[in-house]
Amino acid sequence: MNKDFLIKAAEKFGTPIYLYDLPMILERIDSVKNVFEDLDFSLAFAMKANFNRDILRTFNNIGLMIDCVSLGEYLQARKVGFSPNKAIINGNCKKYKDLRQYIDDEVFSINLDSFEELLRLEKLTNKPTRVCIRVNPDIDPKTHPRISTGLKEKQFGVDYDTAAAMIEKIAHNSKIKLIGLHCHIGSQITNVEPYEEAIISIRQFVDRMKLKLEVLNIGGGWGIDYGDGSFLDLQKYKQKVVPLLKDFNCRIILELGRFVVAPAGYLVTKVEYVKKTKYKTFVVVDTGMTHLIRPAMYDAKHRIIFLYDSSNRDRITADIVGPACESSDVIRNAIEMPIPVEGELLAICDVGAYGYSMASDYNLIPKPIEVIWDGEEFFRSF
Amino acid sequence: MNKDFLIKAAEKFGTPIYLYDLPMILERIDSVKNVFEDLDFSLAFAMKANFNRDILRTFNNIGLMIDCVSLGEYLQARKVGFSPNKAIINGNCKKYKDLRQYIDDEVFSINLDSFEELLRLEKLTNKPTRVCIRVNPDIDPKTHPRISTGLKEKQFGVDYDTAAAMIEKIAHNSKIKLIGLHCHIGSQITNVEPYEEAIISIRQFVDRMKLKLEVLNIGGGWGIDYGDGSFLDLQKYKQKVVPLLKDFNCRIILELGRFVVAPAGYLVTKVEYVKKTKYKTFVVVDTGMTHLIRPAMYDAKHRIIFLYDSSNRDRITADIVGPACESSDVIRNAIEMPIPVEGELLAICDVGAYGYSMASDYNLIPKPIEVIWDGEEFFRSF
Repeated sequence: MNKDFLIKAAEKFGTPIYLYDLPMILERIDSVKNVFEDLDFSLAFAMKANFNRDILRTFNNIGLMIDCVSLGEYLQARKVGFSPNKAIINGNCKKYKDLRQYIDDEVFSINLDSFEELLRLEKLTNKPTRVCIRVNPDIDPKTHPRISTGLKEKQFGVDYDTAAAMIEKIAHNSKIKLIGLHCHIGSQITNVEPYEEAIISIRQFVDRMKLKLEVLNIGGGWGIDYGDGSFLDLQKYKQKVVPLLKDFNCRIILELGRFVVAPAGYLVTKVEYVKKTKYKTFVVVDTGMTHLIRPAMYDAKHRIIFLYDSSNRDRITADIVGPACESSDVIRNAIEMPIPVEGELLAICDVGAYGYSMASDYNLIPKPIEVIWDGEEFFRSF
Repeated sequence: MNKDFLIKAAEKFGTPIYLYDLPMILERIDSVKNVFEDLDFSLAFAMKANFNRDILRTFNNIGLMIDCVSLGEYLQARKVGFSPNKAIINGNCKKYKDLRQYIDDEVFSINLDSFEELLRLEKLTNKPTRVCIRVNPDIDPKTHPRISTGLKEKQFGVDYDTAAAMIEKIAHNSKIKLIGLHCHIGSQITNVEPYEEAIISIRQFVDRMKLKLEVLNIGGGWGIDYGDGSFLDLQKYKQKVVPLLKDFNCRIILELGRFVVAPAGYLVTKVEYVKKTKYKTFVVVDTGMTHLIRPAMYDAKHRIIFLYDSSNRDRITADIVGPACESSDVIRNAIEMPIPVEGELLAICDVGAYGYSMASDYNLIPKPIEVIWDGEEFFRSF
């Protein structure tokens, strides 16, 4: 997004604001669809990345499916208009009352995370219920250990032997209908190899079990470029992974959150203080860990853009810190930048995913306003 | 708190719930006051640790001061009844409108975090304004790097030379009144030595500057026993640090959050699933990182209590994981415990501080109810 646009939004709504570029989101969705153009394909949006209602409404309008990881998410999806047959239910802690609702509403699929969950479902099911089994192919996605989920020591999914036992059990149940398999190996994955490995592994299992799949849900985890130049190469994915998927001869479901929305989100912030000490300079801005926890939590390094002209300024190395009274509230550590000026505007980039959705009331700092750019105008989103 | 009490509360209010033991909090306050019995002493509660209104109201009723790190916290403190002259204003990002309010209301003290903040205050002050200067004595508190604040590379406070320049500047301003110094070297400190070092260091500065202090605000950071047996020894503090403080011949202000409330808070949760895999057992409970981020964020290890009788059960090693769809939602990793049973209740201990106050809406999992035990009955706190 043009710098002038970001400034204009900040002038209209104040700071800090989360700003989402809707046309860019739609472009990214098109680029994803292009990868799967030869397949029977559906894209589901992983709403844990961003549960802004206007964005969700847009996704419903263009026919996306929705990936919900809690009853709360499912109800929010319903509220903005998604019909139950567009809802994919994930997560490892489906309560009795959650399952009751999913069964009653006839959601697209409940993705079973464990044998124990199947037992619970069997107790409840009183009408046809569509399920997938989430398998864990034990692939190392080589990402941050806190967001990799495909290894066997992680809490999600089941190994193939357990999946086989579940398939056997489901075959004897007239109400529960196994429509396919689900697999999600982690987040922010920038190499296609882990995906190849996972698909090949699932293929072997499907063959071994002689399964006829209606859908294969391949999860998501596509990595974006946070500024270090590494990201998932879509052309390579199309060349290497898509042919493997074609062989399944079934509908492919992809669940993406970050890849679709992260680069389209900006957190526009104001420099409150430029604090010079003998040892260091701190740029104190009006947003921080309570609005965007990724730097403090995952050591994430988001790109920072100076919105005012800074081309003729001298440069310094400084820490950009937030307003919370806690030393982990550091947005960027020891970053080289033009000497900042009190009152000027900066944009923190690539925050459309896991930004607002992870915000807290810590320090009772108010949450930012969310603003949408729809291609024609800015409007405040509630 | 007695296990039966915790069960009773969970049966009354459901799970998950945050439960606070008010009599225990009051006892802990008495134990703190005892340490300073020979001094002109005031205790301020650091509300960033817990901003529950009923707890804050109680603190106001018993005459505590209140440590606020944002305008939001200050307004919440005012709402529950604190008068401005009980309010101590901390934080490194005081905006113009925040300072305007603090000046107008005549708060007890604005603790200046930087030279730049003093310049801003000078522009605004139109009536007598009481300030302290937060000095950073560059002491290593030897705690988790994310919560240590006293080192010179951290963003809070000023070095002594800057403090000297600020004192000089304030001396020429008829409106701004320097009432003392402030110092906070970090959180969860379990040795008295860093406190001794900090106080000795400040003493030298006071002597060098021939300062006459009305108050010395020594911050807080007292460490509690999270189960590993290390905590701040109050008797040792009384022997070693209090005599140093006495020498200042002024009022001593201590700012505590965690020490006062953490051990009096329980997060009562239900076991939803006991998920057995070939490699590991996962105990899936109905609370996790969205309610208590400390394990995911600071690698905190909270003690877990089984509330139902488990004395005759076999034991296993398992992970206790939360309901969020993210692999960092692990409450305890590889912990030895009685074999848990679906539906039973566990209590996560020492969560009265930095628990609810850091909770988020991530995954749209509803926040827990907060319940207070006042010594006679449980009531829901809003």
